[in-house]
Amino acid sequence: MKIDPAAHQKMVEKRQEGHQKKQAAATREKGLLIVHTGTGKGKSTAAFGMAVRVLGHGMRLGVVQFIKGALHTAERDFLGSVAECDFVTMGDGYTWNTQDREADIATARKAWAEAERMIRSGDYQMVILDELNTVLKYAYLPLDEVLAVIGARDPMLHVVVTGRHAPEALLEAADLATEMRVIKHPYREQGIKAQQGVEF
Amino acid sequence: MKIDPAAHQKMVEKRQEGHQKKQAAATREKGLLIVHTGTGKGKSTAAFGMAVRVLGHGMRLGVVQFIKGALHTAERDFLGSVAECDFVTMGDGYTWNTQDREADIATARKAWAEAERMIRSGDYQMVILDELNTVLKYAYLPLDEVLAVIGARDPMLHVVVTGRHAPEALLEAADLATEMRVIKHPYREQGIKAQQGVEF
Repeated sequence: MKIDPAAHQKMVEKRQEGHQKKQAAATREKGLLIVHTGTGKGKSTAAFGMAVRVLGHGMRLGVVQFIKGALHTAERDFLGSVAECDFVTMGDGYTWNTQDREADIATARKAWAEAERMIRSGDYQMVILDELNTVLKYAYLPLDEVLAVIGARDPMLHVVVTGRHAPEALLEAADLATEMRVIKHPYREQGIKAQQGVEF
Repeated sequence: MKIDPAAHQKMVEKRQEGHQKKQAAATREKGLLIVHTGTGKGKSTAAFGMAVRVLGHGMRLGVVQFIKGALHTAERDFLGSVAECDFVTMGDGYTWNTQDREADIATARKAWAEAERMIRSGDYQMVILDELNTVLKYAYLPLDEVLAVIGARDPMLHVVVTGRHAPEALLEAADLATEMRVIKHPYREQGIKAQQGVEF
């Protein structure tokens, strides 16, 4: 592939112009409701990447894991050891391990109590609600109640919600929503098992 | 939404069965080539989330940032301070800031030398090549050379490549590829500017 230097320069100039125009128009700051959904990988992972960013700035972070507690211990070990991060795990692993809807609801309720406390406390700049979408999909928590608490948060607090099947009303309330879409998955296509450092 | 407990139990049992079948079929371990692409957010962020996972397991991590050096300092501050992580930043910010193709190629070449060293060294369990896709799209590096080095890596080494516009040949070589797709973006839709802890 050959690229003409003059054409390249023209292209980057045009891009820079567009970028500057957008930057000039974007002047507000506010706490964002961020949703990561879809069936691809990277929903929780991108949330934990934001955690790194937040902690790198010395901001305070709260994390509630609603479901994957039994799996995602590495994040907990690492982030939980940072003074600026409060990390709470409530879920007992995947829901199909429990097969007990009432127990799952009780767990979701306990996790939500922690989440609500974090959101209302004013102690954090970001609160990550990992796998809350899944909990909402199974109707373990009333969506209205969750939306009300998130909607009444401090205007500068960022809330990140992850999990497949984000409810439509949550996406409507969201400022930033991303779908992680599978292009290729080794688990499915090559019989590769979940591996340390990648999946857990 | 009402869910019948018996129907719920049947559903989770069926899911668990499917999950166990897949787990039984997935027995291999290997170093994965992982690609995060698409125009949505979360590509680099999910890579840094994997970094947390890897470091949480006490594994060694190498990171080369090809482009976003000027922006993503929080990740560098945080991860670069961890003993198990070698973090190298080469890019001078977005390419349209330099408007000099020859200088960009020289920078890409230097960054790639570091990446190649990390990949060949045997010192790491994961190497993250942040924004390499962008470098390949602009043809700052020859794709064949990049694919050859990645293809000849230790069979257990995970390599993560991020950036928009992943080349087709890289996606073909990938074990795991995810597209991050925009559902909603505050920058575009609400005039919200890039904020600490979210964008940088």
